[in-house]
Amino acid sequence: MSGTSIQDISSYFLHLQSRIAEALMARDGRLHTEEDRWQRGEGGGGITRVFSKGSVIEKAGVNFSDVHGASLPPSATAHRPELAGRPYHAMGVSVVVHPLNPYAPTSHLNVRSFTTEGEGHTVWWFGGGFDLTPYYPFEEDCHHWHATAAAACKPFGAGLYAEFKAGCDRYFYLKHRDETRGVGGLFFDDFNRLPKREAFAFTKAVGNAYLDAYFPILDLRKDTPYGDREREFQLYRRGRYVEFNLLYDRGTLFGLQSGGRTESILMSLPPLVRWEYRHTAEAGSAEARLTDFLKPRNWLSESELQ
Amino acid sequence: MSGTSIQDISSYFLHLQSRIAEALMARDGRLHTEEDRWQRGEGGGGITRVFSKGSVIEKAGVNFSDVHGASLPPSATAHRPELAGRPYHAMGVSVVVHPLNPYAPTSHLNVRSFTTEGEGHTVWWFGGGFDLTPYYPFEEDCHHWHATAAAACKPFGAGLYAEFKAGCDRYFYLKHRDETRGVGGLFFDDFNRLPKREAFAFTKAVGNAYLDAYFPILDLRKDTPYGDREREFQLYRRGRYVEFNLLYDRGTLFGLQSGGRTESILMSLPPLVRWEYRHTAEAGSAEARLTDFLKPRNWLSESELQ
Repeated sequence: MSGTSIQDISSYFLHLQSRIAEALMARDGRLHTEEDRWQRGEGGGGITRVFSKGSVIEKAGVNFSDVHGASLPPSATAHRPELAGRPYHAMGVSVVVHPLNPYAPTSHLNVRSFTTEGEGHTVWWFGGGFDLTPYYPFEEDCHHWHATAAAACKPFGAGLYAEFKAGCDRYFYLKHRDETRGVGGLFFDDFNRLPKREAFAFTKAVGNAYLDAYFPILDLRKDTPYGDREREFQLYRRGRYVEFNLLYDRGTLFGLQSGGRTESILMSLPPLVRWEYRHTAEAGSAEARLTDFLKPRNWLSESELQ
Repeated sequence: MSGTSIQDISSYFLHLQSRIAEALMARDGRLHTEEDRWQRGEGGGGITRVFSKGSVIEKAGVNFSDVHGASLPPSATAHRPELAGRPYHAMGVSVVVHPLNPYAPTSHLNVRSFTTEGEGHTVWWFGGGFDLTPYYPFEEDCHHWHATAAAACKPFGAGLYAEFKAGCDRYFYLKHRDETRGVGGLFFDDFNRLPKREAFAFTKAVGNAYLDAYFPILDLRKDTPYGDREREFQLYRRGRYVEFNLLYDRGTLFGLQSGGRTESILMSLPPLVRWEYRHTAEAGSAEARLTDFLKPRNWLSESELQ
């Protein structure tokens, strides 16, 4: 069993980044790939990997960042002001995949660790989660996504899936549309209720589960025939992704406000997006039925949750 | 000379909305038009006019709103807390025009009036302005735009153009890109330093000047031949418009947070937008030269400012 040092965590995150990048490349021989290794004046840096213009993947970003400094900015710890000014270390992997085929959903993963040192003890926590944003409603995809999420949580405690599933529904919510961003998944933060080794194991389980949750759905949908209607609807719905990320997403807003690397932060935005005044889907159409998927609901039965 | 009653102001705003709508329709026989008359539970309503899918205009919104209530929400008066709870009346016209041709710039106009009553006196002010967002850099367009703005300001006092031009550069600024949204124009708010009749006349002068500032530029550029390269660059640059409106624009954020009419507020967003990781323009190209236009500069000479 691995340890929980900065090196252990960094090593896992880098390995996860590679596995996801390989999973994308294995599915798309035409994918254009870029890799940027960047450094940050205050300490640390990252590896941004961007995939674009493929036949399966229209755009994807798979980012690793490892950022540290001698003094945590007060703005980074609004809910824990006592940590301001301490040495800190934040690491994470962020992934967004925007497939070309409108029947294939967009997915997002984030796993991260945070540590501060000082005053005789270490404060640490993990955070992250994954969520799915379909353009066309398929019950079985959502069921598979949530079943995989629940299975990843199960060994770490009863109720974790339900708690973090609810957290995901709350977080990825567009108030001005009264819609969730997608069908949710998991969202956890400030996670340190388990011993560090187990909390890290949980975070790894979530990172690993993303691969099992997403790629089977992508494989199932990526070759579905579609036309202009589906493409137009996909581009229209991608507008909601932009609205969420620029209006609500804490990571995006904090990153941009604190002078983060703009191109890495905004890599999550879709490659092509459409806005239309008062778009209305034809009653009873698949596009109209998507709306029912954008309210929190239980995707697993009570017996599946046992 | 007209008065400054609510009816006088409303009548001017509605007339301005009609003139701009007509100017758009006169230039584009294929323009799809929509008009929504909407009402608001707390009092008032508006007329949203949307133009789309034309041969000249890809999308434009020309909105009139007239909103009143018995008690001004505290969030509406962050800088004037003493006005919270009073009866208020806010009216305005907002215009955004996104042309199809990448050589034709996007333009924005807003003019608005605000009044509260109570405690023995009336508090009123006007606000507004217009700004231009080119995709391709043409000095002469920017000069015409700013000369028209300066001419509108001149009868109302020396220094008004310089003051509101600087205000526009400050307001339409994307900190995370270190770029202005475009080449600026005028931006004024809380404007009540002149007698009300003159302050209203100034606001009308700004509204009227928008027509003279914008449509000659649109006419000059709307038929310029272009190809995929220019179209791709236009869609890429439109991403900045979305970033500004969703990350910084006070009207947009306040409107969405306060339960405003989402479809009218987000009507300003471009119809089709593209994001690309680390887009770089070829050195010396027109696309690269646009960057020089996105830092505040004096578009008029000292002698033109006299």
